[in-house]
Amino acid sequence: MKKLNFKNDYSNIAHRLVLERLKEYMDTSFNGYGLDEASEKAKRTVKDLIQTEADIHFLIGGTSANKIAIAHALRPYEAVIAVESGHIAVHETGAIEQSGHKILTVKPVMGKITPKDIQNTVDAHYDEHGVVPRLVYISNATEIGTIYTKDELTKIAKVCKENNLYFYIDGARLSNALVAQNNDLTLPEIASLTDMFTIGGTKNGLLMGEVLIVTNPELKPFVRHSIKQNGGMLAKGFLLGLQFQVFFEDNLFLKLASHANNLALKLQEKLIAMGYELAGVSETNQLFVNISFAKYDYLKDLCAFEVWNKTKDKVTVRFVTSFATKEEDVDKLLELLKN
Amino acid sequence: MKKLNFKNDYSNIAHRLVLERLKEYMDTSFNGYGLDEASEKAKRTVKDLIQTEADIHFLIGGTSANKIAIAHALRPYEAVIAVESGHIAVHETGAIEQSGHKILTVKPVMGKITPKDIQNTVDAHYDEHGVVPRLVYISNATEIGTIYTKDELTKIAKVCKENNLYFYIDGARLSNALVAQNNDLTLPEIASLTDMFTIGGTKNGLLMGEVLIVTNPELKPFVRHSIKQNGGMLAKGFLLGLQFQVFFEDNLFLKLASHANNLALKLQEKLIAMGYELAGVSETNQLFVNISFAKYDYLKDLCAFEVWNKTKDKVTVRFVTSFATKEEDVDKLLELLKN
Amino acid sequence: MKKLNFKNDYSNIAHRLVLERLKEYMDTSFNGYGLDEASEKAKRTVKDLIQTEADIHFLIGGTSANKIAIAHALRPYEAVIAVESGHIAVHETGAIEQSGHKILTVKPVMGKITPKDIQNTVDAHYDEHGVVPRLVYISNATEIGTIYTKDELTKIAKVCKENNLYFYIDGARLSNALVAQNNDLTLPEIASLTDMFTIGGTKNGLLMGEVLIVTNPELKPFVRHSIKQNGGMLAKGFLLGLQFQVFFEDNLFLKLASHANNLALKLQEKLIAMGYELAGVSETNQLFVNISFAKYDYLKDLCAFEVWNKTKDKVTVRFVTSFATKEEDVDKLLELLKN
Amino acid sequence: MKKLNFKNDYSNIAHRLVLERLKEYMDTSFNGYGLDEASEKAKRTVKDLIQTEADIHFLIGGTSANKIAIAHALRPYEAVIAVESGHIAVHETGAIEQSGHKILTVKPVMGKITPKDIQNTVDAHYDEHGVVPRLVYISNATEIGTIYTKDELTKIAKVCKENNLYFYIDGARLSNALVAQNNDLTLPEIASLTDMFTIGGTKNGLLMGEVLIVTNPELKPFVRHSIKQNGGMLAKGFLLGLQFQVFFEDNLFLKLASHANNLALKLQEKLIAMGYELAGVSETNQLFVNISFAKYDYLKDLCAFEVWNKTKDKVTVRFVTSFATKEEDVDKLLELLKN
Repeated sequence: MKKLNFKNDYSNIAHRLVLERLKEYMDTSFNGYGLDEASEKAKRTVKDLIQTEADIHFLIGGTSANKIAIAHALRPYEAVIAVESGHIAVHETGAIEQSGHKILTVKPVMGKITPKDIQNTVDAHYDEHGVVPRLVYISNATEIGTIYTKDELTKIAKVCKENNLYFYIDGARLSNALVAQNNDLTLPEIASLTDMFTIGGTKNGLLMGEVLIVTNPELKPFVRHSIKQNGGMLAKGFLLGLQFQVFFEDNLFLKLASHANNLALKLQEKLIAMGYELAGVSETNQLFVNISFAKYDYLKDLCAFEVWNKTKDKVTVRFVTSFATKEEDVDKLLELLKN
Repeated sequence: MKKLNFKNDYSNIAHRLVLERLKEYMDTSFNGYGLDEASEKAKRTVKDLIQTEADIHFLIGGTSANKIAIAHALRPYEAVIAVESGHIAVHETGAIEQSGHKILTVKPVMGKITPKDIQNTVDAHYDEHGVVPRLVYISNATEIGTIYTKDELTKIAKVCKENNLYFYIDGARLSNALVAQNNDLTLPEIASLTDMFTIGGTKNGLLMGEVLIVTNPELKPFVRHSIKQNGGMLAKGFLLGLQFQVFFEDNLFLKLASHANNLALKLQEKLIAMGYELAGVSETNQLFVNISFAKYDYLKDLCAFEVWNKTKDKVTVRFVTSFATKEEDVDKLLELLKN
Repeated sequence: MKKLNFKNDYSNIAHRLVLERLKEYMDTSFNGYGLDEASEKAKRTVKDLIQTEADIHFLIGGTSANKIAIAHALRPYEAVIAVESGHIAVHETGAIEQSGHKILTVKPVMGKITPKDIQNTVDAHYDEHGVVPRLVYISNATEIGTIYTKDELTKIAKVCKENNLYFYIDGARLSNALVAQNNDLTLPEIASLTDMFTIGGTKNGLLMGEVLIVTNPELKPFVRHSIKQNGGMLAKGFLLGLQFQVFFEDNLFLKLASHANNLALKLQEKLIAMGYELAGVSETNQLFVNISFAKYDYLKDLCAFEVWNKTKDKVTVRFVTSFATKEEDVDKLLELLKN
Repeated sequence: MKKLNFKNDYSNIAHRLVLERLKEYMDTSFNGYGLDEASEKAKRTVKDLIQTEADIHFLIGGTSANKIAIAHALRPYEAVIAVESGHIAVHETGAIEQSGHKILTVKPVMGKITPKDIQNTVDAHYDEHGVVPRLVYISNATEIGTIYTKDELTKIAKVCKENNLYFYIDGARLSNALVAQNNDLTLPEIASLTDMFTIGGTKNGLLMGEVLIVTNPELKPFVRHSIKQNGGMLAKGFLLGLQFQVFFEDNLFLKLASHANNLALKLQEKLIAMGYELAGVSETNQLFVNISFAKYDYLKDLCAFEVWNKTKDKVTVRFVTSFATKEEDVDKLLELLKN
């Protein structure tokens, strides 16, 4: 049997529509550096979706997008507030610090930041011996698969406004958040509550690409300079424009995310029914499940997945579904997990 | 008539073999971040070509590759020596300075650096009030289309060795240099003379991608950390591995570069015959030609190209050929340039 | 009555011997940038004291010294391990991050770092998505006035060696640590256990100045370049050399620190006898005492001190003694604190 | 005979009034970090002198002041324009680049920048592939001892305003410029024409210290954060306040600079009379004189000075006078230079 794959949502080349679109344009010449008609068209599509005046930039990856957005926004003495589990705090090799900025971390609650911890962090920085907190970074969906509600986001936006903080959402898995069962947020609402946010393509069916959406007029000038300086400007920027046009047309991004979420939900329900203990309830396409060492030893040669944590008597593993996951693969995984 | 395109060598999606290869692997799952079998295979192919022990990394673009290589190699007080026209000095928005390093520039001679200017720059930096020159950056082919000879490269490598300088070649258009009529350098020779160099894919038929080849053992550790920190690590790194396998198989990279060079050569010869003045003799796929303002006004709506310089009575324009240029387009351009 | 001063140990110009020494040399011309005979002499004095082969540099202040030492030692992807209360982590306005480096923090135990937390931090950073821990930063005396024992320092040095970590001590108040009642460490031992450390003059009677001592041969080259690049090289470097000669002659540095420690100890003992609750037992010249709000309101106009923390029913205040504190001031403060 | 000293203007401890003032305050306690009454008083004195609304900061040295001012003012993609001989471009070990900023250099004319070269540099940077010129740096007096006229400064300020450039003067030797024979600029005029400038104390009789004067309201917020982050905040900031109060009281700064300039002028006139060739006419306290190798060999053991340049048949040496230079030393030097 071919090894199953629940390792992550970026294991497959791309959705077939993406390659088909590229093939259609094989004989077309484009302007370089994203200043092409395909990118312009895709930007208009994004603006229609967010219903907000914004500058749109197509970037190549998540770390690059976070690094560019934050380096662009901050003065040297300004800092980011994020949860300890935030992607920028632990999985980007100090990319934010390389740009000169401290990340002030707070404990996450279900993977999420709270307005109170933001306020406390601001209050603790009152003079020139400390940095100036200036930007709140969150991920939605979070690094552990949970999502923010409209109420939560509104309260964070409020505390940001009151404290002169930019509010930035890393939306590497924003599509998955938007189609989650308990989601009550829309793209226009997200756009109006934040100063900048991204919508990820890499983990949702594109070859690669993140949309950076800048709504705060203060932050709009010279973003292209920041992109170029940080090595994030693709000579063939039209590749991103073409892909994101496919992505947003007919809501493909939501369809692909729904596909992934639904399979994760099925897996979650069945696992609970089978008596498995979850290491936190996920609302999107990532599941964290506790399994025995015996089960782990059995499974690891038959299925690709990540180990999240190990204790004396159990292993917490992560299963991720994606646009490319087949329902039969979920069934096969469930079969393997039967006792 | 469709507008002709001689603007640059990154206007078209990719060579058809590239997309075909991606299509073949649509149902395959890969490991993330370049740790996949396709990338491993492509690395072995590169090693066979350079016949040198080296670490190979597939990166996304030229500015990103230069920034990563240089940030990785240098201590904070160390600096780069480059010609004033060097890509890192003028067209990368201060990416090297963002990493904290000064670029010490010298006048180019036919687009190239001389051992004497390298030595003079080293000699001028002798105490702690100046930076420490530590890396020589050259582009081959150069920014104006000329190439380095084996003798030139050997002498630069020698002055580097004598002065404890790393020698790095930006090979965004290295394929074009390798197939130039007057080239007498091979890939193994380049690998043995330098500490690091790149081979560009973006400007020679790939969707995107540069190979970074690190031969100096001192520089090998932690390159992947530098890539990640600078936002240059693609989640779907296998996209680069798959493309570079196509690129190097059956010497496709040399064939595509020859195609581009040959059309540029034809264009150059015919233009000379027609009485046009060249603003320097190019040896690769870029031509710099002086035309009258009348000719410029006529041409600009019929053909895409870049303006390099304007004086009172003439315009220097750049024509670039690529893997996608058709011979008939060259003929059409010559037709337009007839008096 | 003149307001008492227990605010910090850098409120007074300098010990009288310092100004007298400067006056003696009013008619002497010195070489610039620390390359003078007074500095050379002071360096020899330091070497005699530490009995270890080392490079000695006289720097202007604590933040500057920490920033220079760490920026000098680390590659871009490398990080510092420190306690959450470490000076570099909270009171230097992101100076370390400005140099591009993340500080990985752990919980302090009595203000101190533990070998176990160092090891855990190293173990949590195993791939290119995280930074590379490379330097352990501690302060001795710590930020809350405690000191490290020889056993503790030896164990930290061991875990550093095992994990390829540089070990650096911020000795802004090292003199106070060396003369603390429970101290069992000598300067030669500190020099042999660490890769770099400082001895502070600013908080112990000099106009300003910290000695940076670099014992690890790997770290010795180009320190002066790092000093200059970070704006830390005094044109009149001889001012530091002259002062440090006074400082180390006849063990003035230990005498001044003993004076400060002894007065703090007296204050501590009397306060305990008077029924005050200490917010941690200090071993050097800083005391943290809990007082009522009534007492706080009474005291704040009569004595300068810092508020460390406030809760509903008490205020934790810091009293600091210094070379300039008079015993009668301690008596006056005790008088004011009587119930 | 004691060796003469014409090496630089920072060879002597300080003017005697400086040490006397410090001695007066030996028993006073001050607030830390420059938030003391002596500093406040000195700031008021500066404001009276410049007759302009400004924020005043006392800093420790020239490189530190330049680094702080520029890092504070610029966004990551913004650059400085300076002459090739500018102090920041050649004698600060890449301190500006360490902060992430490129220095765009132009050829000096008599050590000075021209409005035309500023405009040309701006015009050459029009898109996101180049940096954004944002600040013009000049030194007055210049690195070769010349001074800017009111007309020159006004024209530079105008081209700055027209191009959205900050105008910053490094005034390490501003006192010498102000008392130069051909000077027609006043401190209030300098304050009104620039966005920031410094007045140097280190090279004019203080132990150390530069005043940073920020007149542009945009640049005023958070300067103290930038100072602290860059290691430039002295714990005993009052040392600078006390010194600068002496410096500006009774125009001591102008008296000391006049003393230095007058001796340089005498030296210059006599040398010309004696047939020496100057390597440029200085207007302040630095002289650049061509001497034969024979004379050089004779002189170098009897007098300290710097070698500026060597050619086949002559040596250009620099003689610098200072507050501490005695007229008899000038006479002795002239005696030595007799043929």
